[in-house]
Amino acid sequence: MITVYGMSSSGNCHKVRMALELLDRPYAWIETDSAAGQTRTPDFLARNPNGRVPIIEREDGSVLAESNAILCWLGEGTTLMPADAWERAQTMAWLFFEQYSHEPYVAVARFICGWTPADSPRRAELPRLRERAGEALAVMERHLQSYDWFGGQGLSIADLALFAYTHCADDGGISLAAFPQLRAWLQRMLALPQIEAMPSPPGLVATA
Amino acid sequence: MITVYGMSSSGNCHKVRMALELLDRPYAWIETDSAAGQTRTPDFLARNPNGRVPIIEREDGSVLAESNAILCWLGEGTTLMPADAWERAQTMAWLFFEQYSHEPYVAVARFICGWTPADSPRRAELPRLRERAGEALAVMERHLQSYDWFGGQGLSIADLALFAYTHCADDGGISLAAFPQLRAWLQRMLALPQIEAMPSPPGLVATA
Repeated sequence: MITVYGMSSSGNCHKVRMALELLDRPYAWIETDSAAGQTRTPDFLARNPNGRVPIIEREDGSVLAESNAILCWLGEGTTLMPADAWERAQTMAWLFFEQYSHEPYVAVARFICGWTPADSPRRAELPRLRERAGEALAVMERHLQSYDWFGGQGLSIADLALFAYTHCADDGGISLAAFPQLRAWLQRMLALPQIEAMPSPPGLVATA
Repeated sequence: MITVYGMSSSGNCHKVRMALELLDRPYAWIETDSAAGQTRTPDFLARNPNGRVPIIEREDGSVLAESNAILCWLGEGTTLMPADAWERAQTMAWLFFEQYSHEPYVAVARFICGWTPADSPRRAELPRLRERAGEALAVMERHLQSYDWFGGQGLSIADLALFAYTHCADDGGISLAAFPQLRAWLQRMLALPQIEAMPSPPGLVATA
């Protein structure tokens, strides 16, 4: 059985949980709070020297880091990974888009609103983060004007990766009002019984 | 034949060139200068709405974006992608590490030193970028204390992805002096006839 070290309120960790639920794979979940330093202990750093969740651990002790690499490994050979090579390549492109052009804005805005004090100097970053987040969401909206899903003909790991922080963009003060296709895609995702929204961060203080 | 839209002085584009050279695949290269706005033209945005190089275009006009997704597509079924599923997963983990924990620091420091004026306010970002770059390089150094390569038993696309900006870290004022394993790995890479270093940015002005 796989053990997941993850933080339930982290979108990157939520991706792994959604994939495991969709694939009906048994797993143990060890709650690991990065905000409380639990990814910087010697024990955790021995598992992932990069000090981040999620990681998965196999019974032989081998570890895999990086949420989207975990999605690739879990998805391989399943319906969550397109069988066609070019669709698989597009799936990968969306995974890298998510980590480079989406997560650093959408997720970081949510982090600042949810985990820093209302007077944190980091809140000065929010306008720029929200602007860049809007650019990423516009790229997604444009794609959804022609396609129902991000990777291939059906739900894939690309959808899981992009759902993770898009569905809670509002936590970071990022509105989806201008993106009707995105909102419809989120509803298609949430209609699946294995897909759940994450709870809002407990300390959420939005900044206009 | 594949057409690459790329900027020769960009490490992300250099990855694609190295893979094509190693795989001995014919390609056309259309030089596309993102610093001169050539990735923001209507023509380019029709190919990649995210406005970034590299992209590859097939003869039927279909396009694939994201340097590391292009590496995956080119590498699939070749010696550049490990045959073992777990090694392939680790290869993917390094690709995501590169885009999330390495490129935003190592490559951005190089960009600021190479493409902004000596009095640019962006140079204030350099100390923090170099600190985070050092953390990423330390993770790589630690891996190389136990392994010769990043993905599997031999050269893989993970090595190509990480080589791209590591070998020119010095352009951004990031020293490899403290990382002997990294320097030895770079020498192993550069010993391959298909692997070339990128030239320094023409306008390089290092900031101490």
